[in-house]
Amino acid sequence: MKIIGKIGKNARETEETKGTEKETEPLDKIEFKSFLTKVANDTKIAEGEKAVEDILRCIYRNQPISTKKIAQYTKLPLPIIAKVRTILERNRILTRDKRGALYSENGLNIIEKNLKFKLNHDLKCPVCNGRGIVLDEYFENILKKHKKYAKKRPTVNTSIDQSFATPETATYRAAFMADRGDLEGKRILFVGDDDLTSIPTAISGLCDEVVVMDIDDRLLNLIDEISKKEDLNIKTVKQDFRNPIKNEYMGTFDTIFTDPPYTIEGLKLFLSRGVEGLGEGGEGALYLAYSHKPIDEYLELQRIINSMGFVIYELIPGFNIYEGSEIIGNTTFLARLIGKNLKKFEEGEIDLNKLYTGEVKPIVRHYKCLNCGKIYEIDGKTVRIENLTCECGGKKFKMIKRRKIR
Amino acid sequence: MKIIGKIGKNARETEETKGTEKETEPLDKIEFKSFLTKVANDTKIAEGEKAVEDILRCIYRNQPISTKKIAQYTKLPLPIIAKVRTILERNRILTRDKRGALYSENGLNIIEKNLKFKLNHDLKCPVCNGRGIVLDEYFENILKKHKKYAKKRPTVNTSIDQSFATPETATYRAAFMADRGDLEGKRILFVGDDDLTSIPTAISGLCDEVVVMDIDDRLLNLIDEISKKEDLNIKTVKQDFRNPIKNEYMGTFDTIFTDPPYTIEGLKLFLSRGVEGLGEGGEGALYLAYSHKPIDEYLELQRIINSMGFVIYELIPGFNIYEGSEIIGNTTFLARLIGKNLKKFEEGEIDLNKLYTGEVKPIVRHYKCLNCGKIYEIDGKTVRIENLTCECGGKKFKMIKRRKIR
Repeated sequence: MKIIGKIGKNARETEETKGTEKETEPLDKIEFKSFLTKVANDTKIAEGEKAVEDILRCIYRNQPISTKKIAQYTKLPLPIIAKVRTILERNRILTRDKRGALYSENGLNIIEKNLKFKLNHDLKCPVCNGRGIVLDEYFENILKKHKKYAKKRPTVNTSIDQSFATPETATYRAAFMADRGDLEGKRILFVGDDDLTSIPTAISGLCDEVVVMDIDDRLLNLIDEISKKEDLNIKTVKQDFRNPIKNEYMGTFDTIFTDPPYTIEGLKLFLSRGVEGLGEGGEGALYLAYSHKPIDEYLELQRIINSMGFVIYELIPGFNIYEGSEIIGNTTFLARLIGKNLKKFEEGEIDLNKLYTGEVKPIVRHYKCLNCGKIYEIDGKTVRIENLTCECGGKKFKMIKRRKIR
Repeated sequence: MKIIGKIGKNARETEETKGTEKETEPLDKIEFKSFLTKVANDTKIAEGEKAVEDILRCIYRNQPISTKKIAQYTKLPLPIIAKVRTILERNRILTRDKRGALYSENGLNIIEKNLKFKLNHDLKCPVCNGRGIVLDEYFENILKKHKKYAKKRPTVNTSIDQSFATPETATYRAAFMADRGDLEGKRILFVGDDDLTSIPTAISGLCDEVVVMDIDDRLLNLIDEISKKEDLNIKTVKQDFRNPIKNEYMGTFDTIFTDPPYTIEGLKLFLSRGVEGLGEGGEGALYLAYSHKPIDEYLELQRIINSMGFVIYELIPGFNIYEGSEIIGNTTFLARLIGKNLKKFEEGEIDLNKLYTGEVKPIVRHYKCLNCGKIYEIDGKTVRIENLTCECGGKKFKMIKRRKIR
């Protein structure tokens, strides 16, 4: 901990800086860099010291800022950010108030001297929040309507990686696809739709046909119900994506939307069903929402996309925001893929035992009953949180801890 | 021309529709689709009928609109758009007024019935123009300053694919890099800088070091001059990118910016110099401005990027706008690439005879003297337009025609 000690409050007492006059002695750049490296190593942050720097920059521009907001900005997992915050507080670089993390005076000096931060705000467009598109009055009204329906969603099934995008996100997705010309007069297929993106899409009244395929009856029933009430004419199809889609749907779509499980095999599977929908020889656009990944995994992901004949025509980090999934960094990117001469993965080319994150990286979660405080350990295999009732009768829980099983 | 004839003004007189009452007889969808296919074939549009549809949609949402603006929106080459416009006018779908293309009443009916267009405006954010970032007061002032300097740029050298991004584009690039945290305290290398992006970047005062490498002495001298006047401390290096960069610069940069020739070999070469700057084992961000390409070429481009170890972390179509290059569609995308364990292409893996578009697709251009009207044919090999003086003494020309040499 020698290096860390040196940039704490006692910095002046170390050999190197003893007897100097200044309030804060500048660390030389190399020394500070090794501090960053140490923080990165101590927190086992896959993205390395660059990620630590990203966190520091995010706080610099937005302080005071909550851990959750830092996760949204930096696209890093929340537990990592919490760990980094703790180390930086221990070294008196950061402090905290009710609203979140902020720099100590000393910390600010150290950071400005070593990382040369100057911009105390970011330049993200305040109107579109970096998405590049806006909701006009028409889509604002769709959002209003959709908010009502989004509340009716069933509890998430974490074992199949369900998590709900916010109603805003679902509506922005519909607006985005409309803007890009992929809705008007088009037939759109949702390869899975736990976010209910089909609802604002269909309410827009732009599509020729809206089809939702999903394995979850609860979702399909809800969509049917809303569709009937709003006269949306959405077609719902129960579909296990481990099997090809029905013949009658092969090659009949112009546009695909999917927010697949954030595993490589899940990506291959869901994109393959999308390719079936577009037709292998066909053209069309596929919208992919997917988690920000460390570089190695990200590279594999893009190579898979290219190998299927898709070009990443557009990619917007942080486009999608989810409810209650702060733990995974809370945002995903949205990519518009276009292609021709598409090629799906065939049976045997996808490992069906590694579709869901729980299968690839088994995780134990600790939940606290919001009524009595009792804590439950859940591994997602035998009991799922959405089926749990506390001894006290409580049904609402908060995740308080999360641990990978090695 | 039978199919085209059917949707013209004489539509009602054809066999199929004779004797019907309606003013505009709806074509069934398949028939209209074959019309789109025919337009796509007649204009040899690489992007197919989807591109024709994109043009129709763009006009629908923005009419009346100039050919140049259509090119900016659709990212298609201007001569293609001009051809499509001509065919659509001949078929009385489009008409024109002083401000540009618009639909005839008949055309509007046909389009709305067959393509089901409804959105009469796009949803692009009016504040950031889809770029996702804005210039704050600080960068607005930088833009003001840079506009003055941008006027001093030498004439473009088309034989090495020079073309000038607008001062706004250069400033937005600097702001974008600043927002993403790639300028503060960083060392940035410009692999080529005919756009003078280094100027607003350096004026921002955020970087530790700004180095510009280019083969064009005129540009380097201008940058030196501005750097001296504004005390920017930009280092300029004359560099033929066919050779590796000097040893002293290898692996010394955090951020790279490049707007290479829009050929596959040009991309490989310039990215390889960028990798040298970042260091093969190193991390860092590389900003790439590059032309929108037909899908096959686009796929090859993305595979090359991935093969070097870069991930496309972000990609914004139409980010960069150029002066006087309406002919190439006028906009390019901006991608932020990040990577680690980067790998450059070695000597022998790049075909140095196919770096510039003039080498890959030789082109003859016709220029008209703006003074006396005399027309010159230029193939870019013997005489370049920037060196041409008309017999009348005129030095200003307008490109009026462009033809590939097969």
